[in-house]
Amino acid sequence: MGCVQSFREICDRQKNTNVRLSLPAVCFVWQTAMIILFGVFIRYNEESDTHWVEHRKANNISSDIENDFYFRYPSFQDVHVMIFVGFGFLMTFLKRYSFGAVGFNFLIAAFGLQWALLMQGWFHSLDYTDGKIKIGVENLINADFCVAGCLIAYGAVLGKVSPVQLMVMTLFGVTLFAVEEYIILNLIHARDAGGSMVIHTFGGYYGLSISWMLYRPNLDQSSRLQGSCYHSDVFAMIGTLFLWMFWPSFNSAITDHGDGQHRAAINTYLALASTVLTTVAISSLFQKHGKLDMVHIQNSTLAGGVAVGTAAEFMLMPYGSLIVGFCCGIISTLGYIYLTPFMEKHLKIQDTCGIHNLHAMPGVIGGIVGAITAAAATESVYGREGLVNTFDFEGAFKDMVPTRQGGHQAAGLCVAICFGIGGGILVGCILRLPIWGDAADDNCFDDESYWELPEDEESVPPILQYNNHMRNKDVSPDQSG
Amino acid sequence: MGCVQSFREICDRQKNTNVRLSLPAVCFVWQTAMIILFGVFIRYNEESDTHWVEHRKANNISSDIENDFYFRYPSFQDVHVMIFVGFGFLMTFLKRYSFGAVGFNFLIAAFGLQWALLMQGWFHSLDYTDGKIKIGVENLINADFCVAGCLIAYGAVLGKVSPVQLMVMTLFGVTLFAVEEYIILNLIHARDAGGSMVIHTFGGYYGLSISWMLYRPNLDQSSRLQGSCYHSDVFAMIGTLFLWMFWPSFNSAITDHGDGQHRAAINTYLALASTVLTTVAISSLFQKHGKLDMVHIQNSTLAGGVAVGTAAEFMLMPYGSLIVGFCCGIISTLGYIYLTPFMEKHLKIQDTCGIHNLHAMPGVIGGIVGAITAAAATESVYGREGLVNTFDFEGAFKDMVPTRQGGHQAAGLCVAICFGIGGGILVGCILRLPIWGDAADDNCFDDESYWELPEDEESVPPILQYNNHMRNKDVSPDQSG
Amino acid sequence: MGCVQSFREICDRQKNTNVRLSLPAVCFVWQTAMIILFGVFIRYNEESDTHWVEHRKANNISSDIENDFYFRYPSFQDVHVMIFVGFGFLMTFLKRYSFGAVGFNFLIAAFGLQWALLMQGWFHSLDYTDGKIKIGVENLINADFCVAGCLIAYGAVLGKVSPVQLMVMTLFGVTLFAVEEYIILNLIHARDAGGSMVIHTFGGYYGLSISWMLYRPNLDQSSRLQGSCYHSDVFAMIGTLFLWMFWPSFNSAITDHGDGQHRAAINTYLALASTVLTTVAISSLFQKHGKLDMVHIQNSTLAGGVAVGTAAEFMLMPYGSLIVGFCCGIISTLGYIYLTPFMEKHLKIQDTCGIHNLHAMPGVIGGIVGAITAAAATESVYGREGLVNTFDFEGAFKDMVPTRQGGHQAAGLCVAICFGIGGGILVGCILRLPIWGDAADDNCFDDESYWELPEDEESVPPILQYNNHMRNKDVSPDQSG
Repeated sequence: MGCVQSFREICDRQKNTNVRLSLPAVCFVWQTAMIILFGVFIRYNEESDTHWVEHRKANNISSDIENDFYFRYPSFQDVHVMIFVGFGFLMTFLKRYSFGAVGFNFLIAAFGLQWALLMQGWFHSLDYTDGKIKIGVENLINADFCVAGCLIAYGAVLGKVSPVQLMVMTLFGVTLFAVEEYIILNLIHARDAGGSMVIHTFGGYYGLSISWMLYRPNLDQSSRLQGSCYHSDVFAMIGTLFLWMFWPSFNSAITDHGDGQHRAAINTYLALASTVLTTVAISSLFQKHGKLDMVHIQNSTLAGGVAVGTAAEFMLMPYGSLIVGFCCGIISTLGYIYLTPFMEKHLKIQDTCGIHNLHAMPGVIGGIVGAITAAAATESVYGREGLVNTFDFEGAFKDMVPTRQGGHQAAGLCVAICFGIGGGILVGCILRLPIWGDAADDNCFDDESYWELPEDEESVPPILQYNNHMRNKDVSPDQSG
Repeated sequence: MGCVQSFREICDRQKNTNVRLSLPAVCFVWQTAMIILFGVFIRYNEESDTHWVEHRKANNISSDIENDFYFRYPSFQDVHVMIFVGFGFLMTFLKRYSFGAVGFNFLIAAFGLQWALLMQGWFHSLDYTDGKIKIGVENLINADFCVAGCLIAYGAVLGKVSPVQLMVMTLFGVTLFAVEEYIILNLIHARDAGGSMVIHTFGGYYGLSISWMLYRPNLDQSSRLQGSCYHSDVFAMIGTLFLWMFWPSFNSAITDHGDGQHRAAINTYLALASTVLTTVAISSLFQKHGKLDMVHIQNSTLAGGVAVGTAAEFMLMPYGSLIVGFCCGIISTLGYIYLTPFMEKHLKIQDTCGIHNLHAMPGVIGGIVGAITAAAATESVYGREGLVNTFDFEGAFKDMVPTRQGGHQAAGLCVAICFGIGGGILVGCILRLPIWGDAADDNCFDDESYWELPEDEESVPPILQYNNHMRNKDVSPDQSG
Repeated sequence: MGCVQSFREICDRQKNTNVRLSLPAVCFVWQTAMIILFGVFIRYNEESDTHWVEHRKANNISSDIENDFYFRYPSFQDVHVMIFVGFGFLMTFLKRYSFGAVGFNFLIAAFGLQWALLMQGWFHSLDYTDGKIKIGVENLINADFCVAGCLIAYGAVLGKVSPVQLMVMTLFGVTLFAVEEYIILNLIHARDAGGSMVIHTFGGYYGLSISWMLYRPNLDQSSRLQGSCYHSDVFAMIGTLFLWMFWPSFNSAITDHGDGQHRAAINTYLALASTVLTTVAISSLFQKHGKLDMVHIQNSTLAGGVAVGTAAEFMLMPYGSLIVGFCCGIISTLGYIYLTPFMEKHLKIQDTCGIHNLHAMPGVIGGIVGAITAAAATESVYGREGLVNTFDFEGAFKDMVPTRQGGHQAAGLCVAICFGIGGGILVGCILRLPIWGDAADDNCFDDESYWELPEDEESVPPILQYNNHMRNKDVSPDQSG
């Protein structure tokens, strides 16, 4: 702690948000690197290559419709919407940071997915015969998933970091994600279809640790910009709803063909529906006069989708999904009411979007639910073949049993937490270097720092304008407007 | 009438919009009930259960792609978007009720779909061998459909009811819907793929009757909030467009595999395109200086989708779809211009969103078009097998002929109207009880009642601010903002 | 030139934006014509007709899932979203032309797609046995594509034309498109899956030529309305993101089943990701203080999708897609910075949305990339069967070789440019007639001309309000608001 503290002090510096050299440099260098690495490593797989027709005939596949594209493309597009519109617009709630929310989300997602294709490709899709990564639609989905982890982390530091810092955060985030995912899914053999552990727990703690490392003691100097305005809250609901509606696609996108995708979609649909009701209940109950708080509606309603991620493909049962959603709505909303202020005050973690309540906690719950559900699986419920299919008890793991699988799930959860916290502290150190162009404490949450803003008198509170006007002794209509 | 009148007077009361106890109570009790009922009744069907692999082999199904999930999931997601973004944002047009529009839409849809899965399940998906309801993706679509009926009704009372009243309205609405649907589709054997009768006619008259029961003679006291502002109209266009674009999925979501879904999508696409042109024409023709009215563009452009709902799966022919759309654009827009003010003044029906013009009338037209198209069906056009497939002339109805089917369709329409009006009056009585926390007449259409609003000086007309300011003798710049 | 100039002067006239007769007349006449023509010509094809069941059995098709509907419907819906929400909202960036942007886009797309079904049907889907056009889901996609060309052209004249002019522009645009497309795809046998040439190059030059013909020397009189405001820029990002996310569906919607659709989606996904980074880099590098410009983020990020359109179905290779995107981000952004002002000043082309940078230039690049990629195709990369499939070397073209195909691609590009420029000048002449109700130079970019606007004090710069107020000597709070 002392060490971290002194490192923080070393890094305190005069702030300069000019990224005119650093941002283009990072973009060009990294995009060029991507092109070179893609040239060396990445090729189409047998389902997206022109040899598909021959492959089809050789493998006795009766129709083009059996191409994995048709199993997964609709879900892929839904996930894509979640990443770019969902995450992007969810963060537009701040009154003067909508450009940064949706624009930087766009930038880091577009970079992250390229790097993710490489990192995940090396671990999962490397063809050892020619040393190439062979990609298809499932790789695109996984790349989007990987990016989701970094976008979650962005939520914790929204408005407080520069785009260059975000690019660095994404570079390391994707790298850590790919390693963590390989350990959890392949080495530990945990199942995590919707990424409760791999995506949400990791992404949540990664962002929170970075935010802790970048703690700004005087952030209240920009408190005037920390709230929402009426229309920015409506914009944020666009993000909320597209995340909410397409979450069934998120959790079912890479599950097994057939019943796996079908069941994951149903479970997620139900869990999310249940969350909405308990979120509304708690929001109303804990607010003066029973009024609802948009922050809760925008965020906590999604917690059920996070928490059902791991178990969505299991036989969680419809009522099981409802119970998971029920609990998460309560916990997440209470988190916004009590935990976020507590963390800011006592733990020095400033969590702009409350990702602890929306991703980290529900992710951990999701991991636990997954472990319990897996441990409780029986042949009478799943059927012999169903059990093997669902938990992939094949190859090196053909002697696995449900109870042990439960233990492996729990181990996976621990790995995700460790990678999140450890990685976040490491990357936080890097991001404290005084070279990244982040804003000063009194200048956070302001698009002014990184965006050309329209000359837009509307957006300044009008009475201030009037007062400025008066002070300038300049009331003639010709000079205004 | 006299009885209703006196009942109204009895219910007049001091208004209190505090729902701090009632709303959480309703949410918790009902969600808990859902969990218990789902635990007792709801299970996965054979296509979403882990036994699918064995089922597939036993039934000689060659590929996972034959799972109903792949036939319907893309349409399901489109319908889901219509329910949550489409209906939600369509209602954001009011300048200060966007939170209520999109937020309460979210709440009642999330509750309604759970209750719909149960109600519709008992009627349609009950497995008599074990007494369980077996659900798959088609049930999810039907639940969304059922909810649509209640959201239509919400449009009539938008801004005038409390969230608790909406929950009650949805509980009864879903119940009535399921019964009505069972009578129309199963007992009467009418076909209604896109729900012109079952969803739109029922939902429209249900909402209008409730609005009539809740008539507010002094609603003009909140007329300052009854209009739109520039940006709220743009938000509403998000709703309009997502409804418009995905309506082909709505009407084809539960039709027969193959040509049924294909044809329903084409017919709906064409009807909607045609409606846009006649809506624009009438809107311009009846407005001073030929200017277009956003209310018409936001709403009447959708009427063609409603009116083609029943006949979309029939051989309506492309030009038939265009004609239906042509007429509905005219009728619906004229409805907004003449009928809505007439109904408010003379029939005491205050219809906030004009659902009579968008859902009720076009729904009735859709029912009539369906009856005519069915009665006119011939083997030469449909083919023998096509006729049987399309109208489901099988089992108990294997001796059915098209002309008689036309009569059954008409009967179905009558049932929908009766259930809508009767159910609406009944539920309206309940909603008049002085316990629900709805706003006073001068306080309608205001998010202030149920939402914590951002301190958002922008949204108050600026000159009022200035005046308030002056009255407070408080012009120092430091204290403002 | 001199001739054009004098024609321009002849057409100068007193402006009157009242379209109360002309707009309804055009809508009614054209929609009625559509109904008649559809009645005479358009029928369902064998996959959307009730005879499908018999067709299936006769052709030994094992399952309903082989209906083309299931191969293309998800992509169709994505394309539909791009046309209506994507193009519509992308143009909402102007502070007072959001109604016109999204509303007129809606109107002309709804008309254009009907006319496109006919025009394209005559060329591509005419059944010579009965003289009918047989339509299915692929026709719907192609109609949407055709409309896209006209919507691109709308971008160049946004805010400067009346809805009647737009209808005329769309009528001719669709007609020209269908002829041009037939020449390029069928006669020249060029391939153009994503329409780099057929849609974007044609649409871009069509719009630019019209804008040149309609040059307004005094357009700076409405410069006060030519910019964006904060929220209008966020609305425009909705358009940008839906275009960006669904572009893989656009480029893969009508490619070959199986690997063709799969590969086109992957290539487009990658090209677009790469474009985002170079757009951000150039935007920051060329702006004072390194601040990003929303115009670039909203538009140039999409250029990669345009430029990869033709080659998306070829074996462009993942790194090839990245390179295309890389270059287009740079060129398109530099176009906004240098070329658009240059064209306005020296070429008298006023390009409201900068379609030259987003569609025309990237479209030409796409045509060139397509020609090179086709010419470089080899059997070792594609496989014998893959080569024949991908380039359709069948029937009359069975002796075609890749190098010659490259030449045909280049010829196709020239045809698209010629049709765009020639058609645009022709239609521009028609649109200069003084009968269409377009606005005066000082009245452009203002929804006031064609829309009933809400009484919306917010949207007037507040200090002006205050001043107006003062001048009216009318400060009493009762009369304001």
